[in-house]
Amino acid sequence: MAHPLEEIIASADTAIVREDFDTLLEFYSEDAVLVIKPGMSVTGKASIRKAFERIAEYFHHSVQVQQAGMVVLESGDTALVLAKTVVSASNLPAVTRNATYVFRRESGGRWRCAIDNSYGHELLAGRGPTA
Amino acid sequence: MAHPLEEIIASADTAIVREDFDTLLEFYSEDAVLVIKPGMSVTGKASIRKAFERIAEYFHHSVQVQQAGMVVLESGDTALVLAKTVVSASNLPAVTRNATYVFRRESGGRWRCAIDNSYGHELLAGRGPTA
Repeated sequence: MAHPLEEIIASADTAIVREDFDTLLEFYSEDAVLVIKPGMSVTGKASIRKAFERIAEYFHHSVQVQQAGMVVLESGDTALVLAKTVVSASNLPAVTRNATYVFRRESGGRWRCAIDNSYGHELLAGRGPTA
Repeated sequence: MAHPLEEIIASADTAIVREDFDTLLEFYSEDAVLVIKPGMSVTGKASIRKAFERIAEYFHHSVQVQQAGMVVLESGDTALVLAKTVVSASNLPAVTRNATYVFRRESGGRWRCAIDNSYGHELLAGRGPTA
């Protein structure tokens, strides 16, 4: 059976495509982190909205996003989503990213995205050992 | 500056190598999820201990594990760690996994691992679109 987060993420993707940012922001927690690109992220709803507005503009209002596979790991009120996220636009050939999303179930039972990292391990590219 | 979670994870790795499971279990939340292999996970400290005992036995008490790169994304009391985790044993040539770990900061300020998935997106192998 599909995890409830699959439907939630599909609805968020629809909101991105429609540029319905009021609806989109409802999917995020107040202090959510969005990775815009490797090495650059923003925190909080106001900054996330601005980021999506810029992304929409950059891609000529033609962003398409959908999930082509998903696994959810759930521990209490925390869930990790590993997804194959397909992104394209009029000026971006379709790319499939190994995305990682962390959701928290808030009081009231609603899941909200706390960490939105569609780039997955691309954030580690060029980074050496930390030890 | 290194994130506190880097040191915490290094200490957990040391506990795995030493098979010091009492210490190791302290790094996990009560309802933590550990992915043992793609398609198989366990929940809760008692099951996680058993899994590590079996893993130690399977690898002839020679497991080595260390991180060869790490990025931490933090949102409030939730953190996503993307790591290059190198695992080896006398009967396992070194493999590098794109691991994903989710930590929660509990009351008292201590970070504990809620989701331990050293396999990252390998969990999606062979899975088709969910739609």
